[in-house]
Amino acid sequence: LKPSTRRPDSGQPGPGRLGGTGAPRVVSLLTDYGLADGFAGALHSVLRAHLPQVPIVDLTHEVRPQDVRAGSLALKRVAPYLADGVVIAIVDPGVGTQRRAVAVQAAEADLTFVGPDNGLLVPALEALGGPALAVELENPTYQLASPGPTFAGRDIFAPAAAYLVGGGDIGALGRQVDPGTLARLPPSVCRERDGAYEVEVTWVDRFGNVQLAAGADALAVLAGPAGHVTVAPPGNGGSTWPARAVHTYGDLTPGELGILVDSYGHLAMCLNGASAANRLGTGEQDVLVLRPALREPACSPRSSPGPRPASDGDL
Amino acid sequence: LKPSTRRPDSGQPGPGRLGGTGAPRVVSLLTDYGLADGFAGALHSVLRAHLPQVPIVDLTHEVRPQDVRAGSLALKRVAPYLADGVVIAIVDPGVGTQRRAVAVQAAEADLTFVGPDNGLLVPALEALGGPALAVELENPTYQLASPGPTFAGRDIFAPAAAYLVGGGDIGALGRQVDPGTLARLPPSVCRERDGAYEVEVTWVDRFGNVQLAAGADALAVLAGPAGHVTVAPPGNGGSTWPARAVHTYGDLTPGELGILVDSYGHLAMCLNGASAANRLGTGEQDVLVLRPALREPACSPRSSPGPRPASDGDL
Amino acid sequence: LKPSTRRPDSGQPGPGRLGGTGAPRVVSLLTDYGLADGFAGALHSVLRAHLPQVPIVDLTHEVRPQDVRAGSLALKRVAPYLADGVVIAIVDPGVGTQRRAVAVQAAEADLTFVGPDNGLLVPALEALGGPALAVELENPTYQLASPGPTFAGRDIFAPAAAYLVGGGDIGALGRQVDPGTLARLPPSVCRERDGAYEVEVTWVDRFGNVQLAAGADALAVLAGPAGHVTVAPPGNGGSTWPARAVHTYGDLTPGELGILVDSYGHLAMCLNGASAANRLGTGEQDVLVLRPALREPACSPRSSPGPRPASDGDL
Repeated sequence: LKPSTRRPDSGQPGPGRLGGTGAPRVVSLLTDYGLADGFAGALHSVLRAHLPQVPIVDLTHEVRPQDVRAGSLALKRVAPYLADGVVIAIVDPGVGTQRRAVAVQAAEADLTFVGPDNGLLVPALEALGGPALAVELENPTYQLASPGPTFAGRDIFAPAAAYLVGGGDIGALGRQVDPGTLARLPPSVCRERDGAYEVEVTWVDRFGNVQLAAGADALAVLAGPAGHVTVAPPGNGGSTWPARAVHTYGDLTPGELGILVDSYGHLAMCLNGASAANRLGTGEQDVLVLRPALREPACSPRSSPGPRPASDGDL
Repeated sequence: LKPSTRRPDSGQPGPGRLGGTGAPRVVSLLTDYGLADGFAGALHSVLRAHLPQVPIVDLTHEVRPQDVRAGSLALKRVAPYLADGVVIAIVDPGVGTQRRAVAVQAAEADLTFVGPDNGLLVPALEALGGPALAVELENPTYQLASPGPTFAGRDIFAPAAAYLVGGGDIGALGRQVDPGTLARLPPSVCRERDGAYEVEVTWVDRFGNVQLAAGADALAVLAGPAGHVTVAPPGNGGSTWPARAVHTYGDLTPGELGILVDSYGHLAMCLNGASAANRLGTGEQDVLVLRPALREPACSPRSSPGPRPASDGDL
Repeated sequence: LKPSTRRPDSGQPGPGRLGGTGAPRVVSLLTDYGLADGFAGALHSVLRAHLPQVPIVDLTHEVRPQDVRAGSLALKRVAPYLADGVVIAIVDPGVGTQRRAVAVQAAEADLTFVGPDNGLLVPALEALGGPALAVELENPTYQLASPGPTFAGRDIFAPAAAYLVGGGDIGALGRQVDPGTLARLPPSVCRERDGAYEVEVTWVDRFGNVQLAAGADALAVLAGPAGHVTVAPPGNGGSTWPARAVHTYGDLTPGELGILVDSYGHLAMCLNGASAANRLGTGEQDVLVLRPALREPACSPRSSPGPRPASDGDL
């Protein structure tokens, strides 16, 4: 069970678990299919042709095309909240090649993940106790015949999920594989050096919030009593931005750059009503450098309409 | 009950009500979350973790980010058609601040709205008889613990909706607040002056139709027997466009600008197969000036391939 | 029943049919409404106000606005996988005019299509044995009253679908019409001439794959033992690109143009991890010319980082 969440017997609601009824189980979908081409609709069609009433959650279909890393992080973010059942996750540049198609049970949740073995699934599994059992999807009985191999979601993953959520035995789908052999992506950059943090941007959301590969503990180290840090985007001539540690966006004055602990427990750079990503000129996979601000920045948020880049020497 | 629609006992089908079965109740969602980030998927996950089979309607998640007014109008448009149950509406620039989170029952429909108290909910409520009962969502028993306060949809609104649609008592969610204190947005501009109408653009849809804050009665005043009006977009040097009153898009010749009563009872400017918003160079919240066309416009739709701007003196 | 798929009694899974339970029936939606305006949400609301638990599949709402041909091809692609029940398909430039609104039963599937009679429905119907029975939707008892005629999806098609999926008799919706009078679009271009194929682009997907109006048999004719063809996009000065026949994207080296049989049985041009449509500078409805490559192209994929345009004489 997930810490403080996957405890059906506790009276306490936790993330994604308010009490629960136990049945029926849910199929959740995360893909890079987009919504224009009918790929996601075909998954739904295959699932509902088999099980018309199966509950389906579209986590997202707008992972950046073929960006396995972005998909893996999106799946990890929602992992503590997933409804019990089966997750189909597909970002699959190697579709139709020798990369394995797998179904993997999580150790500490009633969740089985179905998708390509390319690193997409493992971060979410690790957030749920790690992979407990994995099989390779190789039994054609539970696949749809197809004139070409380029739509594994429709022909392999959705049929496997329908079989599993309908109560089928995972062992029937193919031979077991060692969970230790599942492909893994390199971890996101997060390193402390001389009191500064080099942290990778793990996500830029629709509102321009810049999530970082660091948690609340890093902010405790970085932000002194004054609660200020500086952030240096990459490739910006060494200039830095001052940012104030806040609780939520609305604590910021217009134009003031903030840093907070977001609702996933990550640090995130933000503005109130504007895009921090645009302000910093940064994007996913960039590595930012965060440093403690030794004193109140010269360009105090309240004395100027907004932060401006400042060289390290200014602070 | 909504006029002519919310009458379960009547044999007449009305908007959103063809007979109905009474149970189970539906959760409808309207947000500015977009579909790329997994925010909407997290709402679904929390709802289905608690109630796997709850029917969910995604009204839209593509409200322009943080545009409370646009969200409130979108919610009002669909209000007469909502399935009975709970509506989660979230456009929430003040998330995590002192703005209240509320649940509000409509007076004349089996609908409870859950969302921020920032003006988003009131126009839809007023279309359903007004707010009858409101509570502030402050009971942590029905909220999910979170490392940060920036995702109230997942942590406050979805759990409250799950509780309500599952049959919970609204009074358990927090203390009652006076419905008269709910935040309201300024009304859209619609004023008659010297036989002309100044009307705000309330919506530009995907097809470029320009919905206005005026109804069929205004068209009756404006369009004489010939059924023509002129429209002046703002900031266009006083030039105006002729438009013909029609029943539907297909009544227009290619390039001809039309005005009709749309399926929401609003006036709307339109073209046949093209964008009236692009033609007029206008967008939401602009104020257009509509005047009766005293005689057939010089550039008759049938004698020229399309309307061109004309000064007021021409008409 | 569809060949090899719609055989509930067979033990063999086929496309869209893994066993099936028979009830309840599903409503599938395909429109050009987009997801921003709440149009699709209004369809869901009307359906769920009547039948809260009806299973709904969103095939796509992102058909290019008013592109009836693109919508008809998208519907045809998913036809073999549709869950039994009712399909609402709406790409409807003629909404509110004299174009008929129809409900049409497929001859060889438990599927009724509801939508405008403008050519949108027929290709999918033909993939399912053809239209067996058609009625015009003219009974106002099964329509919602509306101030304007511009939202037939909400006011005519969704109520008809709710009635049908709830077990209503199609004959109550209006008078029967001769299925032979249903509007049809011109077929896509696919002609062989002197050993070359002129084929229309039927689809460019999110990944830039270029689906063509030809099947595996054409590739057998075109690609000799070496498995190479050349492709000439329109309006490109007669230059051509070499392409290699492959099984899946991952068989291609970076930058190498490929041709394969896709998961719909169509030929498709592709690149590994990049957009073939961008490479070829082509889009939907273009007509490409495919020719056998008489010998290994001069710019072999392995000896150069990627194909370059070559005149016919080079090959």
